[in-house]
Amino acid sequence: MLTTDLINEARERITPRIHRTPVVTSRQFNEVAGKEVFFKCENLQRAGAFKIRGATNKIRSLSDEEKRRGIVAFSSGNHAQAVALAGREAGVRVLVAMPDDAPKAKVAATRDYGAEIIFYDRLNEDRQKFAMDLAERERLVMVPPYDDYLILAGQATCGIEMLEEVPDLDCVLAPCSGGGLFAGVATAARAINPRIRCFPVEPASADDTRQSFVKGERVAIPPPPTIADGLRVQIPGELTFPIVQQLAEDVLTVTEEEIIETLRFVLTRMKLLVETSGVTAAAAVMFKKLPPDVKRVGVVLSGGNIDPDLLAKLIA
Amino acid sequence: MLTTDLINEARERITPRIHRTPVVTSRQFNEVAGKEVFFKCENLQRAGAFKIRGATNKIRSLSDEEKRRGIVAFSSGNHAQAVALAGREAGVRVLVAMPDDAPKAKVAATRDYGAEIIFYDRLNEDRQKFAMDLAERERLVMVPPYDDYLILAGQATCGIEMLEEVPDLDCVLAPCSGGGLFAGVATAARAINPRIRCFPVEPASADDTRQSFVKGERVAIPPPPTIADGLRVQIPGELTFPIVQQLAEDVLTVTEEEIIETLRFVLTRMKLLVETSGVTAAAAVMFKKLPPDVKRVGVVLSGGNIDPDLLAKLIA
Repeated sequence: MLTTDLINEARERITPRIHRTPVVTSRQFNEVAGKEVFFKCENLQRAGAFKIRGATNKIRSLSDEEKRRGIVAFSSGNHAQAVALAGREAGVRVLVAMPDDAPKAKVAATRDYGAEIIFYDRLNEDRQKFAMDLAERERLVMVPPYDDYLILAGQATCGIEMLEEVPDLDCVLAPCSGGGLFAGVATAARAINPRIRCFPVEPASADDTRQSFVKGERVAIPPPPTIADGLRVQIPGELTFPIVQQLAEDVLTVTEEEIIETLRFVLTRMKLLVETSGVTAAAAVMFKKLPPDVKRVGVVLSGGNIDPDLLAKLIA
Repeated sequence: MLTTDLINEARERITPRIHRTPVVTSRQFNEVAGKEVFFKCENLQRAGAFKIRGATNKIRSLSDEEKRRGIVAFSSGNHAQAVALAGREAGVRVLVAMPDDAPKAKVAATRDYGAEIIFYDRLNEDRQKFAMDLAERERLVMVPPYDDYLILAGQATCGIEMLEEVPDLDCVLAPCSGGGLFAGVATAARAINPRIRCFPVEPASADDTRQSFVKGERVAIPPPPTIADGLRVQIPGELTFPIVQQLAEDVLTVTEEEIIETLRFVLTRMKLLVETSGVTAAAAVMFKKLPPDVKRVGVVLSGGNIDPDLLAKLIA
């Protein structure tokens, strides 16, 4: 279970190794959204996303024998960079299995952090099976992107920091892919403020969590076409989905156009580079997907790793 | 004189009306620069630059009679936006005289803040004389961009905040145009840490302050061609130059290419949008213009207002 103890232990373990990211506000954003919004800037986190929290907590919790064997991760990008960086700093061999259409900037950054990379075919291979086979063959320890309580406890520290800075939030929103960030942040937020309302956000074109939430069981979708390359997971996590069911008031969705417009606003008005996946929660607020009675809103800007070519296209 | 009292009064006056901007670090930047660098993010300040500090302090210090008459400012951009916003919030009429080649985004933002705009010809008209005539004709109070101790005291609050967060800096760097930001930050930094070393930074192609510093008197240069549109002032300020002479150890310069490369690095690696003028001090650190014996470096990222078209070109 994702207990408060597990979260507090994660916090002690990772705090010296991560940034305490700032919480910023923008009156311009507030005017457009009609809410008072507090942005937790995980785009300014080490390796450019919240993922370093869970990866550091997991890797620093391995036994010496596991560390000697080395680790493997499968990821479309930010988790890969985080595992590569956290692994290097822990002196551990890191192998990363990446989809062959992963953004170039993310591939390059992962390699720069010293990881070995193996590509697989995103549309025709099951990434989990591919990585499992690889782990078994090379005797590596798997560092999963979300279905692991040590990973979730790491992501939860983002929620603790946000609530410490702004305790009286009415609600928190986080982008949702496998659900690790949302599950962690919502669990931490509720532990601090039991009345806080929690909303995961995903692209309308990658709404596996919304479909699952409505149906009451995990639903798989085909490979989603969304521009939010970090949110292309096809089914909610096994460990995360029950937490989403329990803590989410609703699953919000945003269109591709809403994602792009929000990215532009956050960049040109708020001067923060946030990737497509990273602005989805902000987009839900900007495009008024929240119930009217919430006023003070916490939003995680979850990452900033965007291909410069894509960025140039989006702002041209 | 720019006294500690004046700075402390400014701080009390403006703190409720501005952001306390974060100080961030980047191990990637540190590795490239070979220093430990602390970035004061004034690009995340209200109206996108440090200028709101001085403008708010000046406008909030006006008499009721002056407020009734209204104010005028002349500016290539960030000062204009700051005066427009601070003026609107104080309920004062604001007229802004702008060069006819000011970046479109800055013109639009100034208008959005409710200011009336009058254009002048940057290459053929003396902007100071133009604005003075305008002020006299319309009986407006001039809010100068730097040659005013209330403006300098406002900018100095940026230095106080930075030193509060990181007291043991070896040196501070700030972009230098008229010299208001540098004069304010250096004065505040020295008041807190008398041994701190201070460096203004300007484009090599707009080095009026360096030339003046070397010669020991204010030197005027022709309209400079630099891409750093906020640093195109042709002569150091009357009030600021003596402070630069007294507090600067040296005036550093950076090339256009160094500015652009630093802007790209700060955007893609550190996820912060900083305008060309705003990254000059960071560029001086990245391209090793500092003496080798300084280790802990404070850098002001002074603003983030860049035309989206120019940005798209720079990152393409």
